[in-house]
Amino acid sequence: MSTPDYQQILEDIRNEVQPLLKKGKVADYIPPLAGRSPLHFGMSLRTLDGTTYSTGEARERFSIQSIAKVFNLTRAMQLEGDSVWRRLNREPSGGAFNSLGQLERESGIPRNPMINAGALVVMDMILNHAEWGEDLILEMVRRISCEPSVDYDLMVAEAEHETGHRNRAIAWLLKTYRNLDNPVERVLQAYFRLCSLSMSCEELATAFHYLAAGGVSADGQTVATGEQVKRINAIMLTCGVYDEAGDFAYRIGLPTKSGVGGGIVAILPGQYVATVWSPGLSPKGNSLAGTRALEILTSRATASIF
Amino acid sequence: MSTPDYQQILEDIRNEVQPLLKKGKVADYIPPLAGRSPLHFGMSLRTLDGTTYSTGEARERFSIQSIAKVFNLTRAMQLEGDSVWRRLNREPSGGAFNSLGQLERESGIPRNPMINAGALVVMDMILNHAEWGEDLILEMVRRISCEPSVDYDLMVAEAEHETGHRNRAIAWLLKTYRNLDNPVERVLQAYFRLCSLSMSCEELATAFHYLAAGGVSADGQTVATGEQVKRINAIMLTCGVYDEAGDFAYRIGLPTKSGVGGGIVAILPGQYVATVWSPGLSPKGNSLAGTRALEILTSRATASIF
Amino acid sequence: MSTPDYQQILEDIRNEVQPLLKKGKVADYIPPLAGRSPLHFGMSLRTLDGTTYSTGEARERFSIQSIAKVFNLTRAMQLEGDSVWRRLNREPSGGAFNSLGQLERESGIPRNPMINAGALVVMDMILNHAEWGEDLILEMVRRISCEPSVDYDLMVAEAEHETGHRNRAIAWLLKTYRNLDNPVERVLQAYFRLCSLSMSCEELATAFHYLAAGGVSADGQTVATGEQVKRINAIMLTCGVYDEAGDFAYRIGLPTKSGVGGGIVAILPGQYVATVWSPGLSPKGNSLAGTRALEILTSRATASIF
Amino acid sequence: MSTPDYQQILEDIRNEVQPLLKKGKVADYIPPLAGRSPLHFGMSLRTLDGTTYSTGEARERFSIQSIAKVFNLTRAMQLEGDSVWRRLNREPSGGAFNSLGQLERESGIPRNPMINAGALVVMDMILNHAEWGEDLILEMVRRISCEPSVDYDLMVAEAEHETGHRNRAIAWLLKTYRNLDNPVERVLQAYFRLCSLSMSCEELATAFHYLAAGGVSADGQTVATGEQVKRINAIMLTCGVYDEAGDFAYRIGLPTKSGVGGGIVAILPGQYVATVWSPGLSPKGNSLAGTRALEILTSRATASIF
Repeated sequence: MSTPDYQQILEDIRNEVQPLLKKGKVADYIPPLAGRSPLHFGMSLRTLDGTTYSTGEARERFSIQSIAKVFNLTRAMQLEGDSVWRRLNREPSGGAFNSLGQLERESGIPRNPMINAGALVVMDMILNHAEWGEDLILEMVRRISCEPSVDYDLMVAEAEHETGHRNRAIAWLLKTYRNLDNPVERVLQAYFRLCSLSMSCEELATAFHYLAAGGVSADGQTVATGEQVKRINAIMLTCGVYDEAGDFAYRIGLPTKSGVGGGIVAILPGQYVATVWSPGLSPKGNSLAGTRALEILTSRATASIF
Repeated sequence: MSTPDYQQILEDIRNEVQPLLKKGKVADYIPPLAGRSPLHFGMSLRTLDGTTYSTGEARERFSIQSIAKVFNLTRAMQLEGDSVWRRLNREPSGGAFNSLGQLERESGIPRNPMINAGALVVMDMILNHAEWGEDLILEMVRRISCEPSVDYDLMVAEAEHETGHRNRAIAWLLKTYRNLDNPVERVLQAYFRLCSLSMSCEELATAFHYLAAGGVSADGQTVATGEQVKRINAIMLTCGVYDEAGDFAYRIGLPTKSGVGGGIVAILPGQYVATVWSPGLSPKGNSLAGTRALEILTSRATASIF
Repeated sequence: MSTPDYQQILEDIRNEVQPLLKKGKVADYIPPLAGRSPLHFGMSLRTLDGTTYSTGEARERFSIQSIAKVFNLTRAMQLEGDSVWRRLNREPSGGAFNSLGQLERESGIPRNPMINAGALVVMDMILNHAEWGEDLILEMVRRISCEPSVDYDLMVAEAEHETGHRNRAIAWLLKTYRNLDNPVERVLQAYFRLCSLSMSCEELATAFHYLAAGGVSADGQTVATGEQVKRINAIMLTCGVYDEAGDFAYRIGLPTKSGVGGGIVAILPGQYVATVWSPGLSPKGNSLAGTRALEILTSRATASIF
Repeated sequence: MSTPDYQQILEDIRNEVQPLLKKGKVADYIPPLAGRSPLHFGMSLRTLDGTTYSTGEARERFSIQSIAKVFNLTRAMQLEGDSVWRRLNREPSGGAFNSLGQLERESGIPRNPMINAGALVVMDMILNHAEWGEDLILEMVRRISCEPSVDYDLMVAEAEHETGHRNRAIAWLLKTYRNLDNPVERVLQAYFRLCSLSMSCEELATAFHYLAAGGVSADGQTVATGEQVKRINAIMLTCGVYDEAGDFAYRIGLPTKSGVGGGIVAILPGQYVATVWSPGLSPKGNSLAGTRALEILTSRATASIF
């Protein structure tokens, strides 16, 4: 089978999604996110051999937000291996990504590492290894994205910190169930910094190379074992886009992770990483044009893990 | 109908409940409460004319805890009247007194002022009137109990503050829904002080005179209107003992309010206030011997509002 | 204290509620109920000595629907005493009157006898005593209302039967938890007949005399013990109007039971039974004008159990 | 990469899982299932070219139960295409496979076609095409399994019918929300027959060939489009094993579907169908030895879709 003409597909996608750009709703709970125009669109596809196809604003950096939870989990698995599952589960949440009721019903054990409660617990594990655990993650991301200038956007982190009342409630509930070792404010600060990572589609496509390549990063280092990579991909597929996991699996058929900044990352193991960015969100919180873009991609290039 | 021989009834009750004293479980989440022996038992009944009948350790002070929520509500109604209901409901909770899931489902509007979330909102209202709002309540309680030495137990308050993670989670969730005006830590501090009120059965029986007497306190001042008193009693009956409200109404038939310190207050409008204390709790968190004591009282004295 | 001029109060109420008549929504899930005009209004108040005050269409019969659940419970308590509580609780439901989720969470034990699941279990108990158990209730109602012509409206019962899918689901769920002994269709048939009872305000005021009079019916027979009456009143207060129990207790302050046909019954123990009918319902399913009528009554006649 | 020695792997698996056989609990809610010994074990793996590897009792027929829901969905998609999603969703349930509470919260729209509520709706769609819709499915299964003797086990179906109170409650709740067109008892009868399908591991491995082969069945006919196959596999991965979907994705990494009879089917698209049977179940209702067998298979043969 010949390689699809990815560049042409990306250009077609960019044209097709134009009408959707105005229909999404930009996240407005903090000023730095609210300031983005819904008209932005960028997309990259990077194959295993390093070839990168891009369209639109693929080099414009944006706030990757929850996409960073995958880096968070990867770093924790490096440090703790399978024992991360002593403190959280890996089942789909079947509901809101920031529900306190679910966390309460399940006695402080988050359903998976992709909901906020789970990511806070994962960050807490990392903080048990280093006081400034978020720097361990930043260091890794800079390396695997081959881009040392990648950084936290402290203005975004600060804005999240000021308005993050629900995450604060979640953290105190975790504390109630003794599932948070470090001080609540320290965990929140590290978590909000993590989510403030500012990266472009191209940088993300490089950084997530290891999930398509059995654990080896774009710069040739082993970030995770082959087994770990399969498992992270499985978690992305079942839990990566909150209450749309089933719909994404059905329509796109790839492991994906989205962020409220409008970014989405998708992995076709053994072949490529695709990344897309458009700030307008669907009512369920995933990039509207981005979701459609990935659906067109997998349909046009007849790619799917299934 | 002749007046029942209350003194005899109280003595009988004290004898009958002895076997129950060892069966309850003393609250142990903070050291000052955990330190109390389950063998304590005291009871008072104070009729409208001021006659007081007592048995056991009716003059021993204990931590009144959630019983103070009634003072809290009364003080807020003095300050704000019916507008307190703009920020909370008055329906039975049908569940745990400290549920975050319920608060979340109902978008930050507490179901009633007797669950923790509701009491925090009520305290927040009072703090909008005075920076040290809890002192407004203390002042009132000292007056209506005719006992100026009544005070907060700051060691209890401090212990609650250190371990009150779930209340902290509730407060932040209220903040998420913009239903808390003052800083979370200030509201919690005031709330924990309120709950730390240390009073005896006799002092409580005097202090709650106004709920049996149409709003007039034992020292002859108007604490609430007749209408307000009826409404506070109605809230106690439907919401005063958490998820045992129906069972208390069925077995005891009086408006009651319990606290985790083992105290319970019951009102027979137009006739008396009965108070009881025994630290051993039932699995649902109400004083085991105290509940039985009130059941015997209303059965023996054939009293009920129904 | 002189007796209030009840006749005058009733006339005033009738005038005051006129504007509300058009604002309620008539139950329309079955044709026989949907056919009633929202403009109907009738009210009766019957004191312990048998004096009856009436206004409006107080002699017009209507479908009493859930009000009949009180007769159902009374009859079962006659047959089984306190052992009725082996199969159901008496706590406020804190939610919808016909929730399957709650019944499932609580493993098939209905929260109280005033929600549909609870009433089905109560009827099932009665059917264990007589194949046509609903006739045992009818017989009792005819006697205590001093009106032998009171009857089931089989057209209403039939219409309920045809459309009662949710009650059917509830019954099968009870069966799942082995909390229904008789065949589902038999229990449903008896239950729908029970709810189809057609009575007027005056007839209801007579029939419920026993709840104001310590268990003695208008025709001088003992329907329940004094203890049982207190307990039935307690259940009405905490559970009689579904998710408005707290609000009714607060605003009206009497044990009440409502029906979807627009009727409401209220008890002031030792003094009177008040009944009201107006088919237009509030969004929570209680008669809009009827609720307001009772609120005016207890406010004007300064009556309350609290 | 050379083909793994599947026969050797299967033999190894059979040895390794022996100690687990006694630890599972055989489903005992109907006699025909309760009668099976937990010591049974069979497994088959059939590659795309038709080569079949087997071990243990791979030719012994068992009750495939919920595995049949995949045939059900496939048949409905043949008849109705994407419009099946007008009446049900495809999100993980995040909870029990037979929850009424969830169905109620989501207003009668089942979360996916793999929970009982969803399968009933799918069967109802098929019944809209043929009065004896279950025969349409049987006909297809006989063809794609190349085994005309495959049949319903009417004794099992009858036993389910007699005890299926919870499914009956679900069906009536669907009816309440107008999401069931045919008579409840007809839908249930057809559904229980569907679940009573009696097949062996080898027969299942042949029958599900189409899910590994882009929609073409073992006998060379097109059962589904390539797109449909991807989507069915996606649904199996996210919803196929109830509340263990995340754990299965993590540990096994293949689309799977289990049944309470102890069978599990797993698909590696483009390569093989693996089937396993052992009646002892885990507390979550999936075959204990069967789950472990698939985990060993994918680990030993380093296969995964991720």
